[in-house]
Amino acid sequence: MTITHPPTPGTALWVHAHPSRRSLNGRLFEEGVQELSGRYDVTTSDLYAQGFDPVLGERDFGAGVEEPRNIAELVGAAYSGGRLPTDVRAEQAKLAAAELLVLQFPLWWYGPPAILKGWIDRVLTAGFAYGDLDPDLGVPRRYGDGGLVGRTALVVVTAGEDARSIGARGISGDLESLLFPLTHGVLWYVGIETLDLHVVHDADALDAREVEREVDRLRERLRGVEAEPVRRFRRLRDGDYQGTRALRADLLPGRTDLGIHVLPPG
Amino acid sequence: MTITHPPTPGTALWVHAHPSRRSLNGRLFEEGVQELSGRYDVTTSDLYAQGFDPVLGERDFGAGVEEPRNIAELVGAAYSGGRLPTDVRAEQAKLAAAELLVLQFPLWWYGPPAILKGWIDRVLTAGFAYGDLDPDLGVPRRYGDGGLVGRTALVVVTAGEDARSIGARGISGDLESLLFPLTHGVLWYVGIETLDLHVVHDADALDAREVEREVDRLRERLRGVEAEPVRRFRRLRDGDYQGTRALRADLLPGRTDLGIHVLPPG
Repeated sequence: MTITHPPTPGTALWVHAHPSRRSLNGRLFEEGVQELSGRYDVTTSDLYAQGFDPVLGERDFGAGVEEPRNIAELVGAAYSGGRLPTDVRAEQAKLAAAELLVLQFPLWWYGPPAILKGWIDRVLTAGFAYGDLDPDLGVPRRYGDGGLVGRTALVVVTAGEDARSIGARGISGDLESLLFPLTHGVLWYVGIETLDLHVVHDADALDAREVEREVDRLRERLRGVEAEPVRRFRRLRDGDYQGTRALRADLLPGRTDLGIHVLPPG
Repeated sequence: MTITHPPTPGTALWVHAHPSRRSLNGRLFEEGVQELSGRYDVTTSDLYAQGFDPVLGERDFGAGVEEPRNIAELVGAAYSGGRLPTDVRAEQAKLAAAELLVLQFPLWWYGPPAILKGWIDRVLTAGFAYGDLDPDLGVPRRYGDGGLVGRTALVVVTAGEDARSIGARGISGDLESLLFPLTHGVLWYVGIETLDLHVVHDADALDAREVEREVDRLRERLRGVEAEPVRRFRRLRDGDYQGTRALRADLLPGRTDLGIHVLPPG
């Protein structure tokens, strides 16, 4: 059996991870969902409003495990056995249906808030999001393939810092690298392609007019989202990685930065 | 007023973020705490055992906020006003006392589990961990200075992947970059220096003998921890960053990888 879940055309899932609806994020969420609703059947996961519990624990992998076991394997067995908790199954159903995924969050400590990290920890289980072997190549179906192949994700992130601080040589590290664990390590790992990040800088300092401008900019971006090119991370199955582990020595020799996993243009 | 909390000499805090005490992590936690206890007064935060709630929410920043406000500022005001929840205040007290901090977790989706991310989100509040200006330079006391200066952290991480997959050219990105948001964006930001990562590779595939070897390796590491050199990230106050935002153009010109924030040797 393969674990691919074909998305339902015209369906989108918007995952939102900010505690206050009266915030800039709350506004962008509302307006963004409205904008997409003209063309998509939009489902939402408003994680704070749902009271989503982000702590992967015994109810996910089964109580009373008597000896050391791989947690991911136990959770995968719970998935296959239909024993995952209801909240996780509901999120998996929404994700399985969506061809467009929007992940929207404020940048907290240079990553997603815990409630979104835990949505990833709990929802992207083995057996659902990854775990197959490619039958032709004998390598795992991951990094450009996987249980959720055929989907595109837009990451919408608000940051208190300005474009220089989280830019290419910014003191906090560039945002592309800071979010590599999400765009590459999570999304690309399970087969989801990503569009360019949608970043709102100086998010805590915007005045009312600037907020309106950001609302308009997001709406405009969403209107053209189907036509946007996806990022080109390297695919495991294309043979760029030796024995599935490390980039071949003849590709970008000597470089060790995260940029080596992005396909050169052309 | 400055927000520096001088640590109590000989005090350590070990934060542990794995759901099962019968796991490899549970074993390393127990043995590591025991090893340190010979020389340190060791406090622990066993986040799963404590039932720590990682979701930063209204109890942290105050209910009934009527208009958009900066969450971090609201939480900072709650800190100054003594209104933070009891669980957060308890964690802050432990952290304020510790001169050695150990953060131990399994690598889930290329980052800390949600329960640890949320410990960071909730405990490292403005006013406690950051927020001062340097009186001489007029720049914020962050990146190498801050509320928790004078502390050293050891990050102990178990990974299912092998040393190649998360090595310098590994398919998943190198672990140093994947954890840069933690070592630099969190710890260095608030003034905590870090030691080299302590990584257990292939953590799901170790046999009993290999587990014992990992226990011994951690114990040995801990025995010599005071003598280890700390990492040398660039300090904001040393002037390497123009206007506190981006690395000066004359330093490592043209490079944009995260490695530019590490001081060259010598």
